[in-house]
Amino acid sequence: MTSSNALLAGNRTTLAGYRATHFGWSVTNGVATIMLNRPERKNPLTFESYAELRDLFRQLAYATDVKAVVIHGAGDNFCSGGDVHEIIAPLVDLPMPELLLFTRMTGDLVKAMRHCPQPVIAAVDGVCAGAGAILAMASDMRLGTARSKLAFLFARVGLAGCDMGACSILPRIIGQGRAAELLYTGRAASGDEGYQWGFYNHLCTPETLLDEAAKLASDLVAGPTFAHGITKKMLHQEWSMSIDEAIESEAQAQAICMSTRDFERAYRAFAAKTRPVFEGD
Amino acid sequence: MTSSNALLAGNRTTLAGYRATHFGWSVTNGVATIMLNRPERKNPLTFESYAELRDLFRQLAYATDVKAVVIHGAGDNFCSGGDVHEIIAPLVDLPMPELLLFTRMTGDLVKAMRHCPQPVIAAVDGVCAGAGAILAMASDMRLGTARSKLAFLFARVGLAGCDMGACSILPRIIGQGRAAELLYTGRAASGDEGYQWGFYNHLCTPETLLDEAAKLASDLVAGPTFAHGITKKMLHQEWSMSIDEAIESEAQAQAICMSTRDFERAYRAFAAKTRPVFEGD
Amino acid sequence: MTSSNALLAGNRTTLAGYRATHFGWSVTNGVATIMLNRPERKNPLTFESYAELRDLFRQLAYATDVKAVVIHGAGDNFCSGGDVHEIIAPLVDLPMPELLLFTRMTGDLVKAMRHCPQPVIAAVDGVCAGAGAILAMASDMRLGTARSKLAFLFARVGLAGCDMGACSILPRIIGQGRAAELLYTGRAASGDEGYQWGFYNHLCTPETLLDEAAKLASDLVAGPTFAHGITKKMLHQEWSMSIDEAIESEAQAQAICMSTRDFERAYRAFAAKTRPVFEGD
Repeated sequence: MTSSNALLAGNRTTLAGYRATHFGWSVTNGVATIMLNRPERKNPLTFESYAELRDLFRQLAYATDVKAVVIHGAGDNFCSGGDVHEIIAPLVDLPMPELLLFTRMTGDLVKAMRHCPQPVIAAVDGVCAGAGAILAMASDMRLGTARSKLAFLFARVGLAGCDMGACSILPRIIGQGRAAELLYTGRAASGDEGYQWGFYNHLCTPETLLDEAAKLASDLVAGPTFAHGITKKMLHQEWSMSIDEAIESEAQAQAICMSTRDFERAYRAFAAKTRPVFEGD
Repeated sequence: MTSSNALLAGNRTTLAGYRATHFGWSVTNGVATIMLNRPERKNPLTFESYAELRDLFRQLAYATDVKAVVIHGAGDNFCSGGDVHEIIAPLVDLPMPELLLFTRMTGDLVKAMRHCPQPVIAAVDGVCAGAGAILAMASDMRLGTARSKLAFLFARVGLAGCDMGACSILPRIIGQGRAAELLYTGRAASGDEGYQWGFYNHLCTPETLLDEAAKLASDLVAGPTFAHGITKKMLHQEWSMSIDEAIESEAQAQAICMSTRDFERAYRAFAAKTRPVFEGD
Repeated sequence: MTSSNALLAGNRTTLAGYRATHFGWSVTNGVATIMLNRPERKNPLTFESYAELRDLFRQLAYATDVKAVVIHGAGDNFCSGGDVHEIIAPLVDLPMPELLLFTRMTGDLVKAMRHCPQPVIAAVDGVCAGAGAILAMASDMRLGTARSKLAFLFARVGLAGCDMGACSILPRIIGQGRAAELLYTGRAASGDEGYQWGFYNHLCTPETLLDEAAKLASDLVAGPTFAHGITKKMLHQEWSMSIDEAIESEAQAQAICMSTRDFERAYRAFAAKTRPVFEGD
């Protein structure tokens, strides 16, 4: 182990061998796939799956063998949100400090999704509701189908639309007016609406959805993955900066990328009229 | 009167009996309807109607009998903006401190619309221009018609597009590029454009517009109105927060909603396979 | 020279006679036209053209004879971005401090485009890639054609999408989801996509594109140009303000505009049932 490796050992791990307890997990050629897998109930989240997802996305920050993430649901649905029996029932009786523990845990999952360097692609078919809608929203890109049903249905269970960052993130994806309607009413948006509004990047058939998500992830893995991580970081970092602050931040961040080998590889390939082979460093 | 009522008496009022001087006002089943009502001049605003609207929206913060607001115009138009004779004429001769008094008053109307907890729905038919366009923009949701004409026509009267928050709010609804065009040129956008851009949530026929706005408002009133007020507050509050700050703020705000009776009512109804009856507490 | 002229002499200049070295430059009736003019290579940028553009946009802040700017490319393309041979080749070997000098220079061009008071209109035909896409993005309005190809292709050359403010500005024009896809993948968006997303304000035929851009610029020049400059400043200034802060800022900015002669001219013309003739003061 070189000294730099020793120095950074705590910052490096591999996750291909991770065995997930509460959802499906696999890693192929740098693409990790998370499958929410309780299809008989439309893949709801539980206290345990929330916590495991949060911990896993936090580990992804250190993973050297995962460069992009696809998240999808088993069967014909993405995710129905927090399980009514396993989550909502106990919440009703919790004292305030424990309610806050719960809302912070779910919020921490979104934070972890935004802080890991891997682009996250949500492949959304069927029901995408409540916390499931949040998972899709918190991803970097989203593929949908005509039958995707996107519903931020917190109002339907007596809650506010401000869950896990929705009042901040959703308006920046689809606009304040459309976001307000979805958050106040909890109504379901169709796949076509979601596409017209820019929530879904593309619509696919249910049959090709997962393949297309995997293809998009593979293409990203074949790209300059270190730079992709910087892109993700800056999209996050500049959220509430002024334009002038953002430009200076990008000048620094891009200067970092210009000193990577991938930048040189791209130039050498161009000069040699070949395709660059990026290695992520 | 209980002690908590005594404590909060100054924070509670009813507005069903309010008699408006400069516009129509009625309250039915928790839905307040504001009708701008000088149809022969396309419902312009005057110094007096600005001030009364501002004061009324401020009072709405304390109203216990109003849970949603619809604003519309009498006849075939929404609002033609500040009256040329009654507003623009005197402004031309005012000294700077009084100009600022005026621009702050109009800005205070938008602040009051954003600070009251009730969702505001604008029902926009025909002309929606100048300060009228601002009233629609400052609402939470907007219904339009094919013949709606949305024009931020400040440039046409020699002014800047930065009026009552337009340079901050409009770009977040329809995007910076479209907002820039409307604000620089003052051109009118059609109902169809406004819908495609996300300014209007839905287009209706002129005949059904007000009914559909009232229906949307009624549906909100039948929902968890305390939580709706929190949704509105957080959409406002998180405007310029970072994502991480927004997530922590939402964790706190949603924990508050999880300790309401409406949340428990929703769960009990679900467990009993009935529809929840929300009461707003 | 009056005393006020003496006082402000350093803040006033004329640019009609400016002779550009690295691009075309002309001024007609207050509209300046910048033509990127190396059509045989699709109008790439070089170190020299970046620097000259930056310096020119900085001078525009003081220009009394330029009230709007059109930027376009010679031939059938807008701009192919940083020249591979003249920019990317030397960058590969630069030490960090010089990389930062470069990224700050390019960022300073965007800052200068946003800080000058003149609205900038990009007329985009054909290839609009890399730094060319940034120039279009940093403009106030954009006209495109069906064959416009918009590509933020930084990822293709091993870099991050955070270049010259892209992670801050692009999402506010087309939404976070669409921006993420363009920045991560570097894929080209068609003219029609760009229009649907609000990147282009209008699509034109290649034959009419420049005329329509010039017409839009002329219309702005015939308007209240001082007020337009305030509109531009506030769109910039309010980027990361809260709504309440933005409203107070606009109250002040609009009060300034209400004390201009153009505001009075508009009222006098209206009262006389004529069209106002604005003079920009």
